[in-house]
Amino acid sequence: MNAASPNGSNGTVGPNSDLKDVFELAQQLRVDSVRASTSAGSGHPTSSMSAADLMAVLLARHLHYDWQRPDDPGNDHLIFSKGHASPLLYAMFTAAGVVSEEELLTRYRRAGSRLEGHPTPVLPWVDVATGSLGQGLPYGVGVALSGRKLEHAPFRVWALCGDSEMTEGSIWEALDKAGRYGLDNLTAIVDINRLGQRGPTELGWDLEAYANRVEAFGCTALTVEGHDVAAIDKAFEYATHTERPTVILARTIKGQGFSEVADAEGWHGKPLPPEMAERAIAELGGVRHLKVRGPGPRPYQPPPRPTPQEVRLPEFEPGDKVATRSAYGKALTALGARPDVVALDAEVGNSTHSEDFAAVYPGRYFQSYIAEQQMVATAVGLSVRGWRPYAATFAAFLTRAHDFIRMAAVSRARLALCGSHCGVEIGADGPSQMGLEDLGMMRAVHGSTVLYPSDATAATALTAAMADLEGISYLRSTRGAYPVLYPATERFPVGGSKTLRSTAEDQITLVGAGVTLHECLAAADTLASDGVHARVIDLYSVKPIDADTLVSAAEETGALVIAEDHRPEGGLGEAVLSALAERSAVPRFAHLAVRDLPASGTSAELLDAAGISRSHITAAARRLLSR
Amino acid sequence: MNAASPNGSNGTVGPNSDLKDVFELAQQLRVDSVRASTSAGSGHPTSSMSAADLMAVLLARHLHYDWQRPDDPGNDHLIFSKGHASPLLYAMFTAAGVVSEEELLTRYRRAGSRLEGHPTPVLPWVDVATGSLGQGLPYGVGVALSGRKLEHAPFRVWALCGDSEMTEGSIWEALDKAGRYGLDNLTAIVDINRLGQRGPTELGWDLEAYANRVEAFGCTALTVEGHDVAAIDKAFEYATHTERPTVILARTIKGQGFSEVADAEGWHGKPLPPEMAERAIAELGGVRHLKVRGPGPRPYQPPPRPTPQEVRLPEFEPGDKVATRSAYGKALTALGARPDVVALDAEVGNSTHSEDFAAVYPGRYFQSYIAEQQMVATAVGLSVRGWRPYAATFAAFLTRAHDFIRMAAVSRARLALCGSHCGVEIGADGPSQMGLEDLGMMRAVHGSTVLYPSDATAATALTAAMADLEGISYLRSTRGAYPVLYPATERFPVGGSKTLRSTAEDQITLVGAGVTLHECLAAADTLASDGVHARVIDLYSVKPIDADTLVSAAEETGALVIAEDHRPEGGLGEAVLSALAERSAVPRFAHLAVRDLPASGTSAELLDAAGISRSHITAAARRLLSR
Repeated sequence: MNAASPNGSNGTVGPNSDLKDVFELAQQLRVDSVRASTSAGSGHPTSSMSAADLMAVLLARHLHYDWQRPDDPGNDHLIFSKGHASPLLYAMFTAAGVVSEEELLTRYRRAGSRLEGHPTPVLPWVDVATGSLGQGLPYGVGVALSGRKLEHAPFRVWALCGDSEMTEGSIWEALDKAGRYGLDNLTAIVDINRLGQRGPTELGWDLEAYANRVEAFGCTALTVEGHDVAAIDKAFEYATHTERPTVILARTIKGQGFSEVADAEGWHGKPLPPEMAERAIAELGGVRHLKVRGPGPRPYQPPPRPTPQEVRLPEFEPGDKVATRSAYGKALTALGARPDVVALDAEVGNSTHSEDFAAVYPGRYFQSYIAEQQMVATAVGLSVRGWRPYAATFAAFLTRAHDFIRMAAVSRARLALCGSHCGVEIGADGPSQMGLEDLGMMRAVHGSTVLYPSDATAATALTAAMADLEGISYLRSTRGAYPVLYPATERFPVGGSKTLRSTAEDQITLVGAGVTLHECLAAADTLASDGVHARVIDLYSVKPIDADTLVSAAEETGALVIAEDHRPEGGLGEAVLSALAERSAVPRFAHLAVRDLPASGTSAELLDAAGISRSHITAAARRLLSR
Repeated sequence: MNAASPNGSNGTVGPNSDLKDVFELAQQLRVDSVRASTSAGSGHPTSSMSAADLMAVLLARHLHYDWQRPDDPGNDHLIFSKGHASPLLYAMFTAAGVVSEEELLTRYRRAGSRLEGHPTPVLPWVDVATGSLGQGLPYGVGVALSGRKLEHAPFRVWALCGDSEMTEGSIWEALDKAGRYGLDNLTAIVDINRLGQRGPTELGWDLEAYANRVEAFGCTALTVEGHDVAAIDKAFEYATHTERPTVILARTIKGQGFSEVADAEGWHGKPLPPEMAERAIAELGGVRHLKVRGPGPRPYQPPPRPTPQEVRLPEFEPGDKVATRSAYGKALTALGARPDVVALDAEVGNSTHSEDFAAVYPGRYFQSYIAEQQMVATAVGLSVRGWRPYAATFAAFLTRAHDFIRMAAVSRARLALCGSHCGVEIGADGPSQMGLEDLGMMRAVHGSTVLYPSDATAATALTAAMADLEGISYLRSTRGAYPVLYPATERFPVGGSKTLRSTAEDQITLVGAGVTLHECLAAADTLASDGVHARVIDLYSVKPIDADTLVSAAEETGALVIAEDHRPEGGLGEAVLSALAERSAVPRFAHLAVRDLPASGTSAELLDAAGISRSHITAAARRLLSR
């Protein structure tokens, strides 16, 4: 039996099935969306019902996928940008035979379940976590970019979007890049059900308005009746043969199939009460047990990646003045010997020094222009396909992508971010360009690694280390050139620190990283000339942090000054306090940080004005010692 | 002398001056941009030179402004979205007679100067800080919205944009809203010089591509030769008489007027070396000392605002279960009695309860749809015109607007933000919807106030207090309903706390806010039944923090457990540690926070899984006491 009979509810639906059987599959997806969410007591059935026909046609006829082998490199990618339609997605998994009906009906949204409220990659068929709207399509651009520009692979990327999320600027960054990169392997499917969470969407069913925007951004717009399976089928077929990315604008009805909620306000994100669910299931033709066997993966054997060349990291002469951002660029270029490393820019590559990489590996370098959200999203998408992306911009402008970085962690993405031009150290450009919140932002990302080198040798080693770290790693680089402190042979384990000055008689510990480490060293010299022995710690690994060394220093010296070119909240100071407090080892403590709003000036003037320069460190140390 | 003579360089240029005199003014702006940046040794002369003709025409003929009275309510607003063109802006101020040539040539980008690298409102003629690209135009939408929808005032808003920033999604959020709100008083002027920081922009001089996008987003596009003062003049004239917002797409040449750098790569953000500057000034026709007297402000007397009605805040019965988000909505609605309070939503007003306000004051409620960046930008723009905006979305989604919030502080904006649905407490929706980084993000904002009420009475009082706070204030609200703890008469000063349990024999202090405060109370009950006296502190004011109470508690009890529904970094725990460490009063300390990646479940299940529930607080207290 290859197809469901017209009245059958147990058949298998596939590419050659009659479209009315595909419609039966759609009805099953609706029924199962209702059942799952009603059983859970929460969820978004009506947002699932509007897209059920679109997804049934996709699943049966166009999604090339081996459900038993989600890692097959020839599999298409399906991304639910409207992650709240998880009942629909999970109902599709049930139809595909990989999630049992029992699991769907008893585990959805329950504690410990993989069927979370919004999809995450704990499910092997889910590439990226969604639920923060306007993100799934941007990730899809990254995945499609890998297929088209890096792998030359035949898979396609399908992203199901909600209409409400089309007001997010990130969607337009994504479509702009899709058009620019010529991602003909990407299809966005917009479920235009005209109703958002709290009422009508901005553009309602004005499909022409959407189409004009899509076309203006370099993609092909197709409008379609979203409950006409034949029309949908044609649109998908067309989308697979255009030379541009396609956006299918589907006019749909929220709650389609159940007259009591169809096109009605007030039903967003609400499960149907049990007795209503029963009526819905009846109106939808009852429970079905169809299975789907869609087209298998496209034949694709990824070519063996070129043998990694030896990575020859740059070396620097102690004493020479080199900016850590410059070391980042050189180290990144050296890492290009690894064929899995790719680099991304947001039109500041000559400042972050990402551009060094572009000069040697132009094929693995992607220009995002000034679109930080899409830069991070592309990185996440590339990581889905196994690449090791390095994305850099000014530390200040990474705040633009905060929500994407937060979600990248939920996606279990592996990516390296670099934020340059941190702190008041940048000088005359002023506060708009100063990264003063980045350490706090990045520390709070789940599972993140936060690195802040003080010299070119450390920057090089840490840039290299990021290629093999799990999760989101972040390196903070500095604009100005400062003396190289370490020989090229020095090792910088993540979670470590360097004690640069230490005697048995140390009376105080000075802790810094980046520019403030150099200020700490100068302060230690001044204190030494007064006969005060100061220990100096280079805290290059902010997270994880070297608690042992800090606790020893606190206990042995009894006083600690920390200076950071960052706001006092969430940065080095609080990281150190947390580490010390956990071991009940907080000594007399002075925390120098950027507490006022900086303006323009030279680096030295601004460090001084912020109270984080050598003279302030020296004074703070003296104050602590006199207590 | 009303007009500069063709050869004159000391005249006054005004609305009736010959256009060739306006061109002379443009040349002066170029010369002064070169002189200012060369004298400073940094800055963006070439980006200023491309827009000089546009700005000369605007200044002389279209910008209605009284330079001696920047607070005149009839003044137009000029926003440099391309803030790096500050030499041009400051040269305009010099031409307008409000910044001396000496100040321009000796103070630009210097320490302590008001002529910062990127403009900020320390200058009375600057409304908002810019420099993070893609933000000025969005702020302009907020200012124009005030003029059109709230004030019905005649002023116009002019925003000078760079072409590079047109790739930021936020620009399209702004144009979408400008079109939707019908802001015919807004003109964006895009300086399309085709060269970004590191090379050609994405769209180069493809003015048609820009125009298609602009029109698709509901605005009128005008293309113009950006160095043809007559054409520019006509375009501005046209823009003031259309019924839609206008985007003037000006084809310009970067470095225009100096052949050595005109249209050349490699000259972004670089001052001309002194000898080159001399040649530039010569080619530009030498130094001029023209003054400009453009059209004065449009006659406008703002109608007296309606007498504030008495604000009757909602009252809640202790013991009743009420969600703080619900109290926020009720308090905000009560505050509507103040005629200066406005509210903004990002299509979740039924969740944040902003919608309560809309029901009573629809004319002061603005729907941003799902565009958090624009929601915050609109709030900033409204604050420029003296409104007290309250903008709310899920705490998680405020991360989307992080860069705008950061810059709002540099703009010295006054606005109230509310983030609802914080923490794992939200339950089944999962991590994408959980605000777990918001306290850290908001604490690190310069001058911010961070509030986290635990009951409806506190939420009400703090929501009301935000209306009179300076800077950026933030209130974190909770999804679920918990018992009202305080009578309506209770006061909640910003910077205070509440000690809910206290005896002379307290052995330990439990600190919480929001849901964890309720968990702390339950833990204290359990401990009490074991004969352990626990002090309980409601830390409703996270920043500023009540250091005195915390230090006393630490010193009197010697042990402290803090539990927060937030990541361990940057939130309550580190705020408390910072306060205690500054006074050398860190006791034995246990910090319970959300350390793993949460999934779905009930509130109680997730609080327990995260280790921040009553049982974990009790256990942590016992562990500390046994040390």
